[in-house]
Amino acid sequence: MRIGFIGLGQMGAAIAGNLVGARHEVAVWNRSPEKARSLIEAGATLAESPKAAATDREVVFTMLADDTALDCVLAGERGLLAGLAPAALHVSMSTIAVATAVRVEEAHRALGQRFLCAPVFGRPAAAVAAKLFIVAAGDSADLQTATPLFGAVSQRVFYLGAKTSAASLVKLCGNFMILSAIEALGEAMALAEKGGIARGQLLEVLTGSLFDSPAYHTYGAILAEGRFKPAGFAAPLGLKDMRLASQSAEALRVPMPLLSVLRDHLLQAIAQQGEDVDWSAIAHSINKNAGL
Amino acid sequence: MRIGFIGLGQMGAAIAGNLVGARHEVAVWNRSPEKARSLIEAGATLAESPKAAATDREVVFTMLADDTALDCVLAGERGLLAGLAPAALHVSMSTIAVATAVRVEEAHRALGQRFLCAPVFGRPAAAVAAKLFIVAAGDSADLQTATPLFGAVSQRVFYLGAKTSAASLVKLCGNFMILSAIEALGEAMALAEKGGIARGQLLEVLTGSLFDSPAYHTYGAILAEGRFKPAGFAAPLGLKDMRLASQSAEALRVPMPLLSVLRDHLLQAIAQQGEDVDWSAIAHSINKNAGL
Amino acid sequence: MRIGFIGLGQMGAAIAGNLVGARHEVAVWNRSPEKARSLIEAGATLAESPKAAATDREVVFTMLADDTALDCVLAGERGLLAGLAPAALHVSMSTIAVATAVRVEEAHRALGQRFLCAPVFGRPAAAVAAKLFIVAAGDSADLQTATPLFGAVSQRVFYLGAKTSAASLVKLCGNFMILSAIEALGEAMALAEKGGIARGQLLEVLTGSLFDSPAYHTYGAILAEGRFKPAGFAAPLGLKDMRLASQSAEALRVPMPLLSVLRDHLLQAIAQQGEDVDWSAIAHSINKNAGL
Amino acid sequence: MRIGFIGLGQMGAAIAGNLVGARHEVAVWNRSPEKARSLIEAGATLAESPKAAATDREVVFTMLADDTALDCVLAGERGLLAGLAPAALHVSMSTIAVATAVRVEEAHRALGQRFLCAPVFGRPAAAVAAKLFIVAAGDSADLQTATPLFGAVSQRVFYLGAKTSAASLVKLCGNFMILSAIEALGEAMALAEKGGIARGQLLEVLTGSLFDSPAYHTYGAILAEGRFKPAGFAAPLGLKDMRLASQSAEALRVPMPLLSVLRDHLLQAIAQQGEDVDWSAIAHSINKNAGL
Repeated sequence: MRIGFIGLGQMGAAIAGNLVGARHEVAVWNRSPEKARSLIEAGATLAESPKAAATDREVVFTMLADDTALDCVLAGERGLLAGLAPAALHVSMSTIAVATAVRVEEAHRALGQRFLCAPVFGRPAAAVAAKLFIVAAGDSADLQTATPLFGAVSQRVFYLGAKTSAASLVKLCGNFMILSAIEALGEAMALAEKGGIARGQLLEVLTGSLFDSPAYHTYGAILAEGRFKPAGFAAPLGLKDMRLASQSAEALRVPMPLLSVLRDHLLQAIAQQGEDVDWSAIAHSINKNAGL
Repeated sequence: MRIGFIGLGQMGAAIAGNLVGARHEVAVWNRSPEKARSLIEAGATLAESPKAAATDREVVFTMLADDTALDCVLAGERGLLAGLAPAALHVSMSTIAVATAVRVEEAHRALGQRFLCAPVFGRPAAAVAAKLFIVAAGDSADLQTATPLFGAVSQRVFYLGAKTSAASLVKLCGNFMILSAIEALGEAMALAEKGGIARGQLLEVLTGSLFDSPAYHTYGAILAEGRFKPAGFAAPLGLKDMRLASQSAEALRVPMPLLSVLRDHLLQAIAQQGEDVDWSAIAHSINKNAGL
Repeated sequence: MRIGFIGLGQMGAAIAGNLVGARHEVAVWNRSPEKARSLIEAGATLAESPKAAATDREVVFTMLADDTALDCVLAGERGLLAGLAPAALHVSMSTIAVATAVRVEEAHRALGQRFLCAPVFGRPAAAVAAKLFIVAAGDSADLQTATPLFGAVSQRVFYLGAKTSAASLVKLCGNFMILSAIEALGEAMALAEKGGIARGQLLEVLTGSLFDSPAYHTYGAILAEGRFKPAGFAAPLGLKDMRLASQSAEALRVPMPLLSVLRDHLLQAIAQQGEDVDWSAIAHSINKNAGL
Repeated sequence: MRIGFIGLGQMGAAIAGNLVGARHEVAVWNRSPEKARSLIEAGATLAESPKAAATDREVVFTMLADDTALDCVLAGERGLLAGLAPAALHVSMSTIAVATAVRVEEAHRALGQRFLCAPVFGRPAAAVAAKLFIVAAGDSADLQTATPLFGAVSQRVFYLGAKTSAASLVKLCGNFMILSAIEALGEAMALAEKGGIARGQLLEVLTGSLFDSPAYHTYGAILAEGRFKPAGFAAPLGLKDMRLASQSAEALRVPMPLLSVLRDHLLQAIAQQGEDVDWSAIAHSINKNAGL
């Protein structure tokens, strides 16, 4: 299939690589073009603008840091909206605000273009291994168009129905759940450690009994080893997601005190450890608060 | 083996039943003797005091509501301490304070008796199915004595070493982790529901991707169905465990803001819904706070 | 002095009334013009647009619900920016975001106009009695221009220096402090009441000893009497201020867990009691959470 | 009057000093007798046991670090209960648990002795200046007996009625209110400081407008100057009081999320800064969490 791919950070580059590997024709664009090099060596072509990456493509993916970056890529003379053909499909894989999903969908509709909101779960290693989970919402026909492509990059797709914003909200809920698990692990490990129990010993009990799932295995190991740099998912991006969740919670009038704890710990982690730590570094702040 | 079993609540009765079923000679005692009826029909004998349940027994189990109940069962002329032979083994399966584990161990030592701290993870259904997880600490020789009995009631045993209080602390950490997962699920489901997404749909994504583990399956279903009565694990018992964790956290100087959220939500759940709801009913309070 | 006054809610109408009473020539504008009636009877003139209210005026006040309302009043052909003469002064009395203060100041500067950020402390009754506290920042010459007008509406002016955004931030801090006091009073009164102590009795001790200040007298009485409607300061406006404080806290990387508690309680109060309760109704939610 | 005074910490020594200064005959006892030296020089006599300090005295005061210290002083052959004459009065000025107040009252009643629960508000400087606030509960006749003595050490007495435990609960509420004010000041000052506003400048606005009361003046100055050592009221004592409040809240089923924030910050302050800091040092931890 003729595909465009916009946004080549750790996640985007890995996904695009799997699409190239599955022998699709992929035009890529990134703000810093040097990130495209290895993809081009693998067979992708370099587009000179988001518009160019979208022109004459059946499907264009975006995987960008935040809503502002998405807006920049969409708008203007050199933007995705200007390049995408009527009836062609934009698949947004980044985590975006519920309100942004609604807004982008309307912009595409007005031009006769199609839009699927399809954020993913998984860290860079899972993206490389084509083991992502995709949460998709939009027209079921659009999902069908994307399905073979999703097959090349993920292990499972969840379809949430026609309302695109539902995918955003579920993705935000999922990230909230992950960081909640990190918080719980962090507090429990700090307590155990000050009580004379090794972090790994506690983790073995937890993952060996009621918490035998990827979130706990992945982050449990990171916390047990204190491996917070380099960031797989940087704390400011995590903070951005918690802010988007918080905005939805505020708009919908839902008190979420655990979400509040997470935001405050992310702020502390960034204030004390810098902008380049992994979001799981909230556990390091939890340790420091306990005098560890 | 000749066994005593003291404490026949939902959990104790199920465990004792499996020991009887494994053809051990089991003497049982409970404050309200009528709870022993079906066990006696199955082959257990009724002891008239904790002392009697311990006399001439190689191993005596206790499974009691709280530390005070354990103290009452241990002490006095009719108590377990007075009945247990030197070199016989007391296996405490309830969730008790770290300080209590230390104190009880010393009391047994002074009498030449043995003590294993072995709290369990699992709700009543898991106890009936002999699918508990056991977290044990104490002398490894004592663990060996208990191992065949543990085999009859559990799916896996974690051994934490010689310091008995470690089992208490890990068990408290585990219960904290479970209630943290419930809190996170409760907040996420409230947000999703007010955003137009069915609870079951969110749950399917979570348990189908990063949270495919017993804690999330079990409590996710309870929350999705709003099944908070009758209690499998009553909120006041959950509150007791969070208080014990909090006491350890205070003694060890470990701030645990998520634990604080959990305690406050348990207090709210009990204040609003009564003393007989399941501890997962914190999710019902989370819903009410969101106007659901 | 020739004055314009834009925004005639409870607060704005009271302040404008005192300016009219001090024999200034006041042109007023409000989105719903009927709110201007009694001011016109008292001597004010009705402007047909924000621009008209600013034309030929030495000083123009704005007192609006939120940043969006301020933006609407400033912009466009019929806006304040289009009407204000070079060297004339805009005094913004509403509580606005730090970033908004910066942006509005720049817009005025570009046109050679002057800008003073001067939010106020005090509820409607204090505004009527000319007993407000004003927190002002901007050029000291601009403060001097405004001083006689401030004298007609306030009991005291605090000058924070040249950086206009400082007034916004201090005002947000102040509102955070007030709601913190309400939260503390609400929790203490719930505890006391369930312990058999009348709310008034607790309040008498507090205000008679260490808390003998307006915030505690005013809100203590409201809480003791449960007087949450009609709103003197509506909960959604309070939520807006806490959001603005939270945005500054996030931008500056300052964890504020008490602020988080306040936001969650405001969300609960609005979700359960409606959009038209006073912000102090968080105390009612605190009571409900305790089963009162 | 013939008085006994037990407990000569910073607070007790100052209060006892004022009673000696008012020409009462005061027998003093302290675990470390050297603390009595300056009082003896001023005219007090040294008792060799709590019993001796109570024997032949009309009124005996206690001012001790915690409930355990009070229990130790009361009990045994050399204890206060053994020395106090029937109809003589014990005035407890320390902050004790609600349950302890009930228990101590019963112990005195059983011996025909009288008991007044009369905790105080004020830091050591206020105690020296005889400017304490007293919150008293018990028989009104007992209050009358104590009134002239209270006059020598306090600026005002609040009488809460016959139920002695009410004084404990109100005192715990008061300490919770004070620490809440410190928390709010600490968070607001951290935000202001990172936003470029001097702590003193913010404080001037707050205490000059809505927060013109002793709690804010006293602690505002401490926070603005960062004066957390030596402790006027040590953090572990503050933690003890928050624990007692929390125990009442748990027993009465009252969720208090702000109280939870305070406990967690005290734990952090002690873990990071040591056991000998003032309870207001939670503000220092708030600063550190913000990277200040």
